[in-house]
Amino acid sequence: MDTALQRRVSVIGAGTCDAATSALARRLGALLAGRGWTVVCGGLGGVMTAVCQGAREAGGRTIGILPGDDPAAANPYVDVPIVTGLGIARNVLVVKNGEAAIAVSGGAGTLSEIGVALKIGRPVVAIGHYADLSGVRPADTPEEAVALTASLIGAD
Amino acid sequence: MDTALQRRVSVIGAGTCDAATSALARRLGALLAGRGWTVVCGGLGGVMTAVCQGAREAGGRTIGILPGDDPAAANPYVDVPIVTGLGIARNVLVVKNGEAAIAVSGGAGTLSEIGVALKIGRPVVAIGHYADLSGVRPADTPEEAVALTASLIGAD
Amino acid sequence: MDTALQRRVSVIGAGTCDAATSALARRLGALLAGRGWTVVCGGLGGVMTAVCQGAREAGGRTIGILPGDDPAAANPYVDVPIVTGLGIARNVLVVKNGEAAIAVSGGAGTLSEIGVALKIGRPVVAIGHYADLSGVRPADTPEEAVALTASLIGAD
Amino acid sequence: MDTALQRRVSVIGAGTCDAATSALARRLGALLAGRGWTVVCGGLGGVMTAVCQGAREAGGRTIGILPGDDPAAANPYVDVPIVTGLGIARNVLVVKNGEAAIAVSGGAGTLSEIGVALKIGRPVVAIGHYADLSGVRPADTPEEAVALTASLIGAD
Repeated sequence: MDTALQRRVSVIGAGTCDAATSALARRLGALLAGRGWTVVCGGLGGVMTAVCQGAREAGGRTIGILPGDDPAAANPYVDVPIVTGLGIARNVLVVKNGEAAIAVSGGAGTLSEIGVALKIGRPVVAIGHYADLSGVRPADTPEEAVALTASLIGAD
Repeated sequence: MDTALQRRVSVIGAGTCDAATSALARRLGALLAGRGWTVVCGGLGGVMTAVCQGAREAGGRTIGILPGDDPAAANPYVDVPIVTGLGIARNVLVVKNGEAAIAVSGGAGTLSEIGVALKIGRPVVAIGHYADLSGVRPADTPEEAVALTASLIGAD
Repeated sequence: MDTALQRRVSVIGAGTCDAATSALARRLGALLAGRGWTVVCGGLGGVMTAVCQGAREAGGRTIGILPGDDPAAANPYVDVPIVTGLGIARNVLVVKNGEAAIAVSGGAGTLSEIGVALKIGRPVVAIGHYADLSGVRPADTPEEAVALTASLIGAD
Repeated sequence: MDTALQRRVSVIGAGTCDAATSALARRLGALLAGRGWTVVCGGLGGVMTAVCQGAREAGGRTIGILPGDDPAAANPYVDVPIVTGLGIARNVLVVKNGEAAIAVSGGAGTLSEIGVALKIGRPVVAIGHYADLSGVRPADTPEEAVALTASLIGAD
């Protein structure tokens, strides 16, 4: 299938994370790829690496939108690195390039992305940390997050 | 005094607001101007208009960093309108141009700005809506918000 | 081969063009794809459509970095559309994502991209209009442009 | 007069320059200030420092839109530093914030700004280097450049 026609979902989360969060994000990546959806993320470490690894291992596509100018800064599971040189303003592009955003844990950067997503009308599903924010749909597992996302973007 | 040497504080909040919030933001603007601080905001309506009005009425300076290309879109109390054409990505510039951010109520756009501020290490003080967020310092009144901000940026 | 490891070249040119320029850009796209290089462009019409069409017909990959927020605005030969919402500032991203830039005719927007490319040290090859600019390497044909680019990026 | 109502002109040029170019840019700044126009520039050295110095010495206002995150990187004659963290993409904001652009000598960065200005319909006047570019209006002296600009923006 023409990749331009694939649905895309943004996955947002911390640039460093513990093993349990990493395993969860990797499973999330596999599930998204299993749906035939491309993963969009910030292209760096932690949750971003894990979700890309999971997606690629399951045969999926991954786009990493980087804050800097060096495509080699992308994690090794990024299929299409996009450099921006925009610093943290690249977070806006990470969100805009998905039809929905799934947050996995995360800190202030993730919070900024949730804010942008809600502002521009993207559905936001969160596992962990930000699941209680107003406007965010909580999920307990990657499976639940993907099913909920599918329903929110009309892909179920 | 050379205006480039003035301290700056970003004020973030909704583009439309009720009369009570507007009055509060206007008083906040007057207090910031009274400290000799320049107000930085997104340049549009609601809290942004009110805080600029309060600042200008108290003899202060205001910078409005706009999402679009037309400086005439700035509210009438913006002293220095900056057009960007960056859409919502201009929120990042609003936050970067202040030493601290004070949130007055607000919605998802404000949330995105709080996330950016926390991510890049700017102190965040919030009156209302987002005062409970982790990392944000709550204030009940403009007076308290300004005193707290002064303390956080070493200007007291 | 892992697409992240493919070389990329930016192709810049006018959003509308005559049939001869379009044919030339399409041949250029085919030649770039034949080298195994991904085409990066602004994703819209004219030279951008033609170079993407040529690349895709030859089995290549194409990335279109769009000024707006709608991926459907990409021409039908864009493999990976990236929305930015940055307006003309997206031109910078078009240039940054290639190892070199090849200009095909073009107007002021193309001129801005040539300036950015030269400023950040990307080799620039031009067919037509801007071939005489200082710092730009002229080429008379797509074949010559691609051979020259290969030499400039150390891929020959 | 309310500064928001002042006309603004962008001055673009190299970040380092010889003494003659610097003297010319300083005189240009004085003339712009004499017209009551605010100078917008990239806020750094060379032509940018000189034009700001000239404007400030003549009682004018200056806005410096910086590529980085540190307002202290602005030259000492910048009245209103605006940090962006956008790197070279800030060039677009330099151009957008003026009603016209005056180029003083300059290199590839200036070329990129001329391209943006022409693309978005801003009149461009050039002294020196880029005066021969199609669409650019040449001027031999600061006096001529300011008179020409006044005519182009309807301020004469």
